[in-house]
Amino acid sequence: MLKSMGYGATSASEPLSLLNFERRTPGPTDVQIEILYCGVCHSDLHTARDEWHNTVYPVVPGHEIIGRVTAVGNEVARFKVGDLAGVGCMVDSCQHCQSCADGLEQYCENGFVGTYNGEEMHSGGMTYGGYANNIVVTEKFVLRISDKLDPAAAAPLLCAGITTWSPLRHWKVGKGQKVGIVGLGGLGHMGIKLAHALGAHVVLFTTSPDKREDAIRLGADEVVVSKNADEMEAHANSFDFILNTVAAAHDLDAFLVLLKREGTMTLVGAPSHPHPSPQVFNLIMKRRHLAGSLIGGIAETQEMLDFCAERGIASDIEIIPIQHINEAYERMLKSDVKYRFVIDMASLKQEQPA
Amino acid sequence: MLKSMGYGATSASEPLSLLNFERRTPGPTDVQIEILYCGVCHSDLHTARDEWHNTVYPVVPGHEIIGRVTAVGNEVARFKVGDLAGVGCMVDSCQHCQSCADGLEQYCENGFVGTYNGEEMHSGGMTYGGYANNIVVTEKFVLRISDKLDPAAAAPLLCAGITTWSPLRHWKVGKGQKVGIVGLGGLGHMGIKLAHALGAHVVLFTTSPDKREDAIRLGADEVVVSKNADEMEAHANSFDFILNTVAAAHDLDAFLVLLKREGTMTLVGAPSHPHPSPQVFNLIMKRRHLAGSLIGGIAETQEMLDFCAERGIASDIEIIPIQHINEAYERMLKSDVKYRFVIDMASLKQEQPA
Repeated sequence: MLKSMGYGATSASEPLSLLNFERRTPGPTDVQIEILYCGVCHSDLHTARDEWHNTVYPVVPGHEIIGRVTAVGNEVARFKVGDLAGVGCMVDSCQHCQSCADGLEQYCENGFVGTYNGEEMHSGGMTYGGYANNIVVTEKFVLRISDKLDPAAAAPLLCAGITTWSPLRHWKVGKGQKVGIVGLGGLGHMGIKLAHALGAHVVLFTTSPDKREDAIRLGADEVVVSKNADEMEAHANSFDFILNTVAAAHDLDAFLVLLKREGTMTLVGAPSHPHPSPQVFNLIMKRRHLAGSLIGGIAETQEMLDFCAERGIASDIEIIPIQHINEAYERMLKSDVKYRFVIDMASLKQEQPA
Repeated sequence: MLKSMGYGATSASEPLSLLNFERRTPGPTDVQIEILYCGVCHSDLHTARDEWHNTVYPVVPGHEIIGRVTAVGNEVARFKVGDLAGVGCMVDSCQHCQSCADGLEQYCENGFVGTYNGEEMHSGGMTYGGYANNIVVTEKFVLRISDKLDPAAAAPLLCAGITTWSPLRHWKVGKGQKVGIVGLGGLGHMGIKLAHALGAHVVLFTTSPDKREDAIRLGADEVVVSKNADEMEAHANSFDFILNTVAAAHDLDAFLVLLKREGTMTLVGAPSHPHPSPQVFNLIMKRRHLAGSLIGGIAETQEMLDFCAERGIASDIEIIPIQHINEAYERMLKSDVKYRFVIDMASLKQEQPA
């Protein structure tokens, strides 16, 4: 087994603290990575605190991982020691269902293996995430990271980036289209950057008028304060696509009526309390669609990373030492971050392994 | 003006009774039709009783109209006296918006003119529907009816037929696909026939086990009693498309989870009370779609009528004299009709015009 050290939770009520644990011994198809940076996703907090009622403790969160390859199995072809590498929300899937065959492992018919709190396919134990010094992942689920990318700012691309990229690509967002992004947080700020880079006219919807300037800086062409009915009304029936990143329950109809005929609003956040039921009339009258989307496949994650490297796109981040993770969680709950915390894993070296 | 006679409502609380009224004098682009048959749609009842709170009295319902051309304006090219003709839910639209240009007049950006209770574009008065001896409609909104079709059984194609045909075609239902039809009423029975004729494997969902035999006769390959959780579970993640014809509020999640990855459930009924809010999770986990669809455009209505004529498809109907319309409404409320009432307008001739 491989000895690992990281920060994790031992119960829903305890803060994260230093944990020593083991990962599987790297096999012939495995890549072993020394983790340099790990982004902090809201899912990490949900899982650490068992808010989805499925956490197996101890849990080590983190699925926005950038690191350097320190060992490769003898069947590994795409990575060598010293390469930059990334790991996102998945570390395995069945590899024999239609979705896996289609390169959409996130929709694996047999369930993909999450990077943390997942059932490890090799050892039968649990997977542990990226708030740690190292990780072992089968080659198929390891991403190449260009040297053109800042490794810290690239970390959130592995979840926030692909979660917005995948729907923008699936619904063919591009030049000549008017695209809405609802919510300016970790996901929303990547949605703006990516939709803008894909050539769309981007409108950011926010409840906070004070986010206007920042949204424009990030690439939005317009900003609409969604609480202002007149501002909203001016955009009725005009959007080709709306990417809704808000996970809190809210009025979907306010956005559905902004879609053109045959337009789609795609939800990437699942609220813990349901949204008010959308009016069927708003779907029927313009043949509109309400849809959902989950992260993205490995191939499209690589596509997104390469696109970002070419275009110089990365996340806006605040780097923290691992020792500040509990404080970062509290600030994240108050949306007090622009727009993603990223842990500098060098900070872990001052900790003493057991 | 053209003198007309028909059955209509003078208030929300009165039964339908004989009315004398006037239509516009036919103009150069108009087709004047002697009505032979008119189907009875649930919308007729909603409007007669002002259940949508938008009825202007007196109202003459009816938008599933088959008749014979008795006069044509001098600019009319596609119809001559003696032709069979049909009129559906629309009699006009702006003809200059994108939806009209796309042949999707039902989504006219300026609002199409309903066949009854609509604002007449020529006279500025209201439109009166097909529970009447005649109608005057601009050529663009008149459908050709093949002599191969039984004119009485063809009447419901003009609303129930096109309302199911349009989504089946838009979402490209065909051979090799598994398609669900939710609800076996006027719309559902046409949905089964048309989806079957398009080559799909058709599954009818009903709450009534006693509808099983009839659904198979109509063309369903399988029937699932939607109250039976085990029967439902056996179909999880297996449908390419589900056409939901039920207008009463019900649990959409029970059907959403039956869709394959990227599958769509399309609603063609708008409930007066909202459906329970669907779980976002069910949309996200398989990139599923919830959509709506409204009747269909004139070009696709003609396509459907020609398809039905070729394939010998029409509605299952019960013919009534106009004098039984109020009783028919009561029976429709109890779903006591297989599957559409059609008024034989010859029965109107025994009435005395004022």
